[in-house]
Amino acid sequence: MLQNQGREMMIVTSGAVAFGKQRLRHEILLSQSVRQALHSGQSQLKDMAIPVLEARACAAAGQSGLMALYEAMFTQYSICAAQILVTNLDFHDEQKRRNLNGTLHELLRMNIVPIINTNDAVVPPPEPNSDLQGVNVISVKDNDSLAARLAVEMKTDLLIVLSDVEGLFNSPPGSDDAKLIDIFYPGDQQSVTFGTKSRVGMGGMEAKVKAALWALQGGTSVVIANGTHPKISGHVITDIVEGKKVGTFFSEVKPAGPTVEQQAEMARAGGRTLAALQPEQRAEIIYRLADLLTDQREEILLANKKDLEEAENKGRLALPLLKRLSLSTSKLNSLAIGLRQIAVSSQDSVGRVLRRTRIAKALHLEQVTVPIGVLLVIFESRPDCLPQVSALAIASGNGLLLKGGKEAAHSNQILHHLTQEALSIHGVKDAVQLVNTREEVEDLCRLDKLIDLIIPRGSSQLVRNIQKAAKGIPVMGHSEGICHVYVDTDASVEKVTRIIRDSKCEYPAACNALETLLIHRDLLRTPLFDQIIDMLRVEQVKIHAGPKFASYLTFSPSEVKSLRTEYGDLECCIEVVDSVHEAVEHIHKYGSSHTDVIITENEETAEFFLQHVDSACVFWNASTRFSDGYRFGLGAEVGISTSRIHARGPVGIEGLLTTKWLLRGDNHVVSDFSEHGTMKYLHESLPLPQRNAN
Amino acid sequence: MLQNQGREMMIVTSGAVAFGKQRLRHEILLSQSVRQALHSGQSQLKDMAIPVLEARACAAAGQSGLMALYEAMFTQYSICAAQILVTNLDFHDEQKRRNLNGTLHELLRMNIVPIINTNDAVVPPPEPNSDLQGVNVISVKDNDSLAARLAVEMKTDLLIVLSDVEGLFNSPPGSDDAKLIDIFYPGDQQSVTFGTKSRVGMGGMEAKVKAALWALQGGTSVVIANGTHPKISGHVITDIVEGKKVGTFFSEVKPAGPTVEQQAEMARAGGRTLAALQPEQRAEIIYRLADLLTDQREEILLANKKDLEEAENKGRLALPLLKRLSLSTSKLNSLAIGLRQIAVSSQDSVGRVLRRTRIAKALHLEQVTVPIGVLLVIFESRPDCLPQVSALAIASGNGLLLKGGKEAAHSNQILHHLTQEALSIHGVKDAVQLVNTREEVEDLCRLDKLIDLIIPRGSSQLVRNIQKAAKGIPVMGHSEGICHVYVDTDASVEKVTRIIRDSKCEYPAACNALETLLIHRDLLRTPLFDQIIDMLRVEQVKIHAGPKFASYLTFSPSEVKSLRTEYGDLECCIEVVDSVHEAVEHIHKYGSSHTDVIITENEETAEFFLQHVDSACVFWNASTRFSDGYRFGLGAEVGISTSRIHARGPVGIEGLLTTKWLLRGDNHVVSDFSEHGTMKYLHESLPLPQRNAN
Repeated sequence: MLQNQGREMMIVTSGAVAFGKQRLRHEILLSQSVRQALHSGQSQLKDMAIPVLEARACAAAGQSGLMALYEAMFTQYSICAAQILVTNLDFHDEQKRRNLNGTLHELLRMNIVPIINTNDAVVPPPEPNSDLQGVNVISVKDNDSLAARLAVEMKTDLLIVLSDVEGLFNSPPGSDDAKLIDIFYPGDQQSVTFGTKSRVGMGGMEAKVKAALWALQGGTSVVIANGTHPKISGHVITDIVEGKKVGTFFSEVKPAGPTVEQQAEMARAGGRTLAALQPEQRAEIIYRLADLLTDQREEILLANKKDLEEAENKGRLALPLLKRLSLSTSKLNSLAIGLRQIAVSSQDSVGRVLRRTRIAKALHLEQVTVPIGVLLVIFESRPDCLPQVSALAIASGNGLLLKGGKEAAHSNQILHHLTQEALSIHGVKDAVQLVNTREEVEDLCRLDKLIDLIIPRGSSQLVRNIQKAAKGIPVMGHSEGICHVYVDTDASVEKVTRIIRDSKCEYPAACNALETLLIHRDLLRTPLFDQIIDMLRVEQVKIHAGPKFASYLTFSPSEVKSLRTEYGDLECCIEVVDSVHEAVEHIHKYGSSHTDVIITENEETAEFFLQHVDSACVFWNASTRFSDGYRFGLGAEVGISTSRIHARGPVGIEGLLTTKWLLRGDNHVVSDFSEHGTMKYLHESLPLPQRNAN
Repeated sequence: MLQNQGREMMIVTSGAVAFGKQRLRHEILLSQSVRQALHSGQSQLKDMAIPVLEARACAAAGQSGLMALYEAMFTQYSICAAQILVTNLDFHDEQKRRNLNGTLHELLRMNIVPIINTNDAVVPPPEPNSDLQGVNVISVKDNDSLAARLAVEMKTDLLIVLSDVEGLFNSPPGSDDAKLIDIFYPGDQQSVTFGTKSRVGMGGMEAKVKAALWALQGGTSVVIANGTHPKISGHVITDIVEGKKVGTFFSEVKPAGPTVEQQAEMARAGGRTLAALQPEQRAEIIYRLADLLTDQREEILLANKKDLEEAENKGRLALPLLKRLSLSTSKLNSLAIGLRQIAVSSQDSVGRVLRRTRIAKALHLEQVTVPIGVLLVIFESRPDCLPQVSALAIASGNGLLLKGGKEAAHSNQILHHLTQEALSIHGVKDAVQLVNTREEVEDLCRLDKLIDLIIPRGSSQLVRNIQKAAKGIPVMGHSEGICHVYVDTDASVEKVTRIIRDSKCEYPAACNALETLLIHRDLLRTPLFDQIIDMLRVEQVKIHAGPKFASYLTFSPSEVKSLRTEYGDLECCIEVVDSVHEAVEHIHKYGSSHTDVIITENEETAEFFLQHVDSACVFWNASTRFSDGYRFGLGAEVGISTSRIHARGPVGIEGLLTTKWLLRGDNHVVSDFSEHGTMKYLHESLPLPQRNAN
């Protein structure tokens, strides 16, 4: 609760609620400016001498059923509440104003939440209230204006107006172009249409906006949000106070750059232009970017040094982080090589004809590859992701929103600048946008009308978070890699230790590293088995025993907690299986469908394994670590997907493409093809244009 | 609120809550058996003579802060609450038992919700309570047993036990095999493991299960569910009362068939066997099914007649419904033809090699097509969907769960029976499962561990509902089809009316029917324009005017409410554009990326349109209605997808496939490929095996 976090708040509430309305509509005033005041607990309260004020505060408390509800709710959190009834006249009379002000401040100081209401029974008919300052004259005729009045009077920092709509729209909600305005600047007021279709009325949007503008002019920021269906988990008020993007925020200050929505639209438009370029032109852009990476090396490394220094100053010296964060001449060189690879394969990506069919005479169908649209790539500390991902987006003609970690802000800035410089040679600078580091990832994940695919690049924790946050937008990635190596009875002694060592020890934190070693039962207590164990000991791999393996041993290593563990370290689980069938079953039950390997010299067993294991990558006599876009020859890797929809396994440019169908006819209508029609479907497959090898 | 729906309820609540715990843990007793009693409103209450009971009821009310909260909450719904404190002794003494029973019944009769609590302060130390009946002796030492005791005492129909876990698991939650048990039969008790890892303790799972079993034996059904994080929108208690699948339901009666989870597992296993068959074997199954559809025609039509009769008896005589529901010999014949088409294309679907790469010497990579896994197809009244969808799943080697409308239950039953008969010829009967009509679609949409793809086949409302319900499972389909025809200045007079008529009038309810007609401004007031309007008038198409079109006319038809309308009827919108560029912009802004058409004789303009319109299907001089899997030559259609991920546009078998990567090596490890290693990547593209034309 906010009050218990040391914030002070007042509630302005609709009187109608007390009379049986089932939905609460209330407005909340948060006063942070007075939060420096004593946070007096209950105990202190008793010791204080509170003469007149206490009496007034007490008199205000405990009237309607609504008050009982508030009180009971607040009691749960050891918070006291008090009711204040006000009328228009209370603001006219200077003495009354000061009294009200004093009461409210005193209540807040005593840690009591004032619940404020218009004294409906005694309120006079509405009239313009000429003593109020500002261009817009405001009258305390409804709760909105009352709240605004009080907010300014009490010098609060933030006024939250809750309603049953999401916030302010640029045109009547429900109309074709209606969009929620995230931040509203008074200067933009003309861009807002208050349609007759909007659900307005007394205390509706006009009144709310008017009250908000009035409060803003008085120095209080305002948020209008939906109090009935909180969009975000948790409570709408706490979300607003935590600075999440909820409703419409009224602000005097206009930010310098475009909003993320505008960036997404620029990326879409830029992407469409990019997609309409010739393949050679897209390749040119990528070659140019590759050149810039080496030509502008010094500048890039300088910016990178700034990031490293800032990270060190902040004391975040974790070595793996610094390693990921730091760029070097050799890193830039290999980046440039990777980019040139992408440039080559880009020539044959967009607009490739996948299928041609003669539907009927003079009616030809083509299925061609096209970009997906707008991609959002979220990456953590590695700045080298940026040019790589940009090159992939350019090659595939997609618009791109990039969201990097703030620890790499300087590096990302310069790399993005160079990307736009490369894009400029064909006038498509806007196709790749770097999203401001202030933007919350969660907010981006909610832009389902603007973003077609999200690609998180980083830890499995990042992927899991994004998968959770992305409502309605597909996410390409894998949250876990529980890879198996199965050692068959017919395994070659020489291959087993080599492949296992490479799979587990070459880079134990990788998602394609071995986690569970499955060993055929017949191999237990053979020299091969001892060799495996010796090798793992030498490499300092901590062994966990699966239940069956443990049961075969007199003294076994610690038993696994779960056969579904991704250790991501020099640790692995060993389990025993009776046959290749059981190995397949084990993998289906406990694996993550990422990469699974069989070591055997028996081709039949190997083919059974390759055929039956239902994973993205299934290997025979090769290390799990080959599961990678670059090693597969796909150019730079977009990611590894364990999804069964769209791309699966290591994903290169093709994973960033979709298709469209082009039908070229000559006055063709389907009714001609009816049973007694004049036309007949031919459905004749036509040869494809020659495809370049890549 | 339940109470206001005429249900009677009692609440057994933990006393700890009143002492400041922030999370409510309470148990609720719903008594439907006594719901036949007077539903006395507040007004009736006043007139009643309630001597002793009223006194006792009153005495029980209004004690702790918790009570104040309950009261305040209930007051919002005009419901009264009363507190009852009980101890173990109250059940020992026959007189006290009768008093308690009487009080509770009286309170319920008066529409007052009893809130029951153990009188913690005066409760004696726990001891077995020998006077209670049943195999398990139960003591009222905690709220669970108290609730069970009261439930049986009061002869309630349902006891809901809320906890902070989802329900009962078959093994300790968090362990590898832990699964929530939906329905628990006392006979299965041995299958449940109470691990030390489960979050149990006083009032934990053992106590709850024991209490539940005791109540079940006493004739009260029990649900144990999570009260803190309701899985389903709305409140967990209302969900349970509405019969939704929440938590664990304790029941005496074991259902006849397998659960849907078991069916999904059977479908997965069956699908894997199906995928491992030879392509010819899968084709054989489909040919067999096609034969059965015509051979067993009489039986099918008989079952279908039953459905039709039942629909008529229920008075649901809506003609379109009956039309969709009814089968005929000719429908079955064309179904069989479609199936044979699928059988042909099935020969080249699973296991097709899409890419071959020589990664290095003796290291070969192949990308092959594989089934997606388990599909859930939800279809409405059309029983002909069943064999069609089954054939597609069989052709693609996928396991299939079918969920049909209950109005077609008899037809679906026989068609599914025939499908399984066909599958039996290669021993894969279980690959296609018909889900019981009792199962809720929403429950199926939540089985994200068991189902890989959902395909709704039916109205756009169905698709929208499924898209909303499917949390974490991709849905293939389109919720709307706002298709455009753009008439260019260079359009041929003869083609325009023919193509527009076919696009709008041939089947106006189809998703690929024309909704918005875009006309180049230069065509206004030309004979061509008059011809279009005349044709639409003759065909009785109601015209709506876009804002620009309206502004050009003196007397215009009614202006459109939204340019994004899907009429699905003999209605369309006409809007004017200045150029092909503006047409493309309009389509991007208001379209649904389904199917858009240009009519022009100018090839350059046409190619611009084909290139730039970012929709699944873009046509030149052909009707929108060609946008269809059959017309495209894909065999029977899985659906039309407007998604940009995975399949797009009309989807045939290929949309039901994904790929896997097979790598065949000979002792290959990645460390050999490091900078100073002995191996080098070749990444040489190899020719593909010859593909059959389909």
